[in-house]
Amino acid sequence: MSTATRVTVWNEYRHEKLHAEIKEVYPEGIHQAIAKPLADKGFAVRTATLDEPSHGLTDDVLESTDVLIWWGHMAHHEVDDAIVEKVVARVWDGMGLIVLHSGHFSKVFKRLMGTSCDLKWREANDSERLWVVDPGHPIASGLGEYIELANEEMYGEHFDIPTPDEIVFVSWFTGGEVFRSGCTYHRGRGRVFYFRPGHESFPTYHQADIQKVIANAVNWASPNHGPKPVYGNAKPLEGVK
Amino acid sequence: MSTATRVTVWNEYRHEKLHAEIKEVYPEGIHQAIAKPLADKGFAVRTATLDEPSHGLTDDVLESTDVLIWWGHMAHHEVDDAIVEKVVARVWDGMGLIVLHSGHFSKVFKRLMGTSCDLKWREANDSERLWVVDPGHPIASGLGEYIELANEEMYGEHFDIPTPDEIVFVSWFTGGEVFRSGCTYHRGRGRVFYFRPGHESFPTYHQADIQKVIANAVNWASPNHGPKPVYGNAKPLEGVK
Amino acid sequence: MSTATRVTVWNEYRHEKLHAEIKEVYPEGIHQAIAKPLADKGFAVRTATLDEPSHGLTDDVLESTDVLIWWGHMAHHEVDDAIVEKVVARVWDGMGLIVLHSGHFSKVFKRLMGTSCDLKWREANDSERLWVVDPGHPIASGLGEYIELANEEMYGEHFDIPTPDEIVFVSWFTGGEVFRSGCTYHRGRGRVFYFRPGHESFPTYHQADIQKVIANAVNWASPNHGPKPVYGNAKPLEGVK
Amino acid sequence: MSTATRVTVWNEYRHEKLHAEIKEVYPEGIHQAIAKPLADKGFAVRTATLDEPSHGLTDDVLESTDVLIWWGHMAHHEVDDAIVEKVVARVWDGMGLIVLHSGHFSKVFKRLMGTSCDLKWREANDSERLWVVDPGHPIASGLGEYIELANEEMYGEHFDIPTPDEIVFVSWFTGGEVFRSGCTYHRGRGRVFYFRPGHESFPTYHQADIQKVIANAVNWASPNHGPKPVYGNAKPLEGVK
Repeated sequence: MSTATRVTVWNEYRHEKLHAEIKEVYPEGIHQAIAKPLADKGFAVRTATLDEPSHGLTDDVLESTDVLIWWGHMAHHEVDDAIVEKVVARVWDGMGLIVLHSGHFSKVFKRLMGTSCDLKWREANDSERLWVVDPGHPIASGLGEYIELANEEMYGEHFDIPTPDEIVFVSWFTGGEVFRSGCTYHRGRGRVFYFRPGHESFPTYHQADIQKVIANAVNWASPNHGPKPVYGNAKPLEGVK
Repeated sequence: MSTATRVTVWNEYRHEKLHAEIKEVYPEGIHQAIAKPLADKGFAVRTATLDEPSHGLTDDVLESTDVLIWWGHMAHHEVDDAIVEKVVARVWDGMGLIVLHSGHFSKVFKRLMGTSCDLKWREANDSERLWVVDPGHPIASGLGEYIELANEEMYGEHFDIPTPDEIVFVSWFTGGEVFRSGCTYHRGRGRVFYFRPGHESFPTYHQADIQKVIANAVNWASPNHGPKPVYGNAKPLEGVK
Repeated sequence: MSTATRVTVWNEYRHEKLHAEIKEVYPEGIHQAIAKPLADKGFAVRTATLDEPSHGLTDDVLESTDVLIWWGHMAHHEVDDAIVEKVVARVWDGMGLIVLHSGHFSKVFKRLMGTSCDLKWREANDSERLWVVDPGHPIASGLGEYIELANEEMYGEHFDIPTPDEIVFVSWFTGGEVFRSGCTYHRGRGRVFYFRPGHESFPTYHQADIQKVIANAVNWASPNHGPKPVYGNAKPLEGVK
Repeated sequence: MSTATRVTVWNEYRHEKLHAEIKEVYPEGIHQAIAKPLADKGFAVRTATLDEPSHGLTDDVLESTDVLIWWGHMAHHEVDDAIVEKVVARVWDGMGLIVLHSGHFSKVFKRLMGTSCDLKWREANDSERLWVVDPGHPIASGLGEYIELANEEMYGEHFDIPTPDEIVFVSWFTGGEVFRSGCTYHRGRGRVFYFRPGHESFPTYHQADIQKVIANAVNWASPNHGPKPVYGNAKPLEGVK
């Protein structure tokens, strides 16, 4: 790409500091595990975390972000509502947003969906298989028919989301559940991709095909520079009596 | 119908009290103009308005409402946030919601959509023609190919809504604009229909085919009594190692 | 219902005559197993089979059918192309169509979809669990969170269908596969529901919740009597210079 | 782009040879008018026309085409059914397809849609305004809020197509009609874009914003190289009893 897409990887970054067994899986934090393979692929990547001032999401950072990736879990409630509104406004204005795993319950995602975003879950020894149900979708580029994760947290239906614009993946779990694991949405001029995998206790983001999905999603969600709509009172374009 | 669908017509009911020229069009209020033809068709109809205690939307009223119809305009900001959340929760639980005209900017609709819900508008002498683009949809039952409104406020694209699940009507306006005028959404177990027409200064709700659309939408949006999802921690249904 | 919806259940009716073990499961044919519970629910039900003249689908039968249910498997190629076109024309004109299981490869379904309709399959000892992913959909009325089938043929993704208008069910199979098991489509003024279960060697259609889905789908797919579109050369409705 | 997307522009090429007034608008044929601006933008462009052997669509040409653009009108019936099936098979396998204007009635488009693809039309002095209703869509990249065409043939609703996956444009016509003018579909691994404008008697394809839409659509429809699905009998991935 001539001008690199500017990606900001946001991570709550608490589990990795508080829990030794999580730190073992992601010693530099989940955000670094996500950021590095993106940087290797040529994206212009920054990270931001909850405990930085403004959660690392200053106006400058948001304005210069093409695609924002979001991982959060135990501290959703600590995310400042004013920052949430700024992120939402940027999505409406064209910034792409990729919400990962437990981010389903983040303020940002719930705000953009208009539903509870609730689901079934289980931390056990399930394995997961994500089937590609839309093989023509750019987010499925370069993948095989499915992605296998030897161990993952189970997320099961009903997933309380709006009807997705597109469903790219459907997951199978050992315990008997299914899940719509890769879902796209348009919100204003921006586009949102929810991608299910990535529990903090499993090395999911170290897996190459998961990294490929995230990179594909960044490409898909990057701004399209379509028309900026003009709202409000409008003069007629044709003669009105 | 064996048991009548229970409809609550909610109206802000301010224009009709404050402005003589609006009172002339809707002497008993827009809510009564919407409620009467529904009652005539056999629905069990109540009304509720902004200035009643709890805006007329007590827990009892909401619990016993199958489909809520919403008209608001000049006082969206006066609707109590706690009531908004109760309405939203009831939609998620299966109550149908029909949002009319300027209700596009109501707190309830914006909360359920996750977008700005902004649009172009013009109060002039436009006429409007609503074309049926989905003739197999139950909301189009009994209609002709289009509905004509001799005078209406113009609403023009871009309409900043999520991709609709279904588009039933697209409007043509004299001044050169188009609009997605009849849009459906699923939210939780509930269903939402946005229907564009109905500016307070025009006798739109006295028109028979508009009344038919609203009745059709009530039938479409009434609760389907599908499974009530169970969320949260879930035991496996199959043996997990 | 005041006037009963008129249902025609079409069955290839070969397996039940040729194979003793299938006859044991469906002694009067799959069509009778589907028709009887519908008749018990008050629908006006007829049956039609491949080996009748015109496959039982004369112009009179098609004209007086509100919803056609289709089961076929080993003799898809024996269905007359002229009859296929008549069925398709009736769907476009508003007749509902419910395609069951191996009907995914019927001429009628492939003609209406525009894709290969291919899939993975396995006749083994899989069990199937159909999860409701759209609990607000009328086809899910009265169901639990999922339907369990102790034994069924496996159908797995990728299922080569157009993007469904709505997905009501997603299936889980023992062998590790998933499937979009309940899909809706609009075609002209008619509506189509594909429902996965029902291999001839299993007593699937004797199961009450499967019968409920089929009845719900008949109600959903019955004609809405929307506007009959006028096509071709059209005079302007507004003054064109 | 590192490797240029390979585009084949197919044109019936009869009007331009038979009718002097059309030749005046497109002296080298509509295909050349479409091909040149694409070549200028760096695409690897070829053309093919009806009267060439195999209509110019040999197996070699189809195999080496990433995106096929289709314009046809007066000779749809002369397109060989075997070629139609080859084009359809290539779309299913991932080739992009852009169908222009009167191509709505081409065998290829009708085959892929499964509907009649009928519509209203009028050759008069209508002007057309195509409003962008999905400003975040890549096909709307770089456009203004609408495209104006001073003179075009009118196409009006109801347009008998399947529910589009996405609607990018909605048209307004002087005579009072509207039309879903830019519609996307997934078919197998391939993607289809229908774009309304381009009557042979108007210089529509000489207009820069129309050329931009076609270039955007080529980028959008080019193959994504997702997984090639495996169909048919499948061994279990998990232990089945």
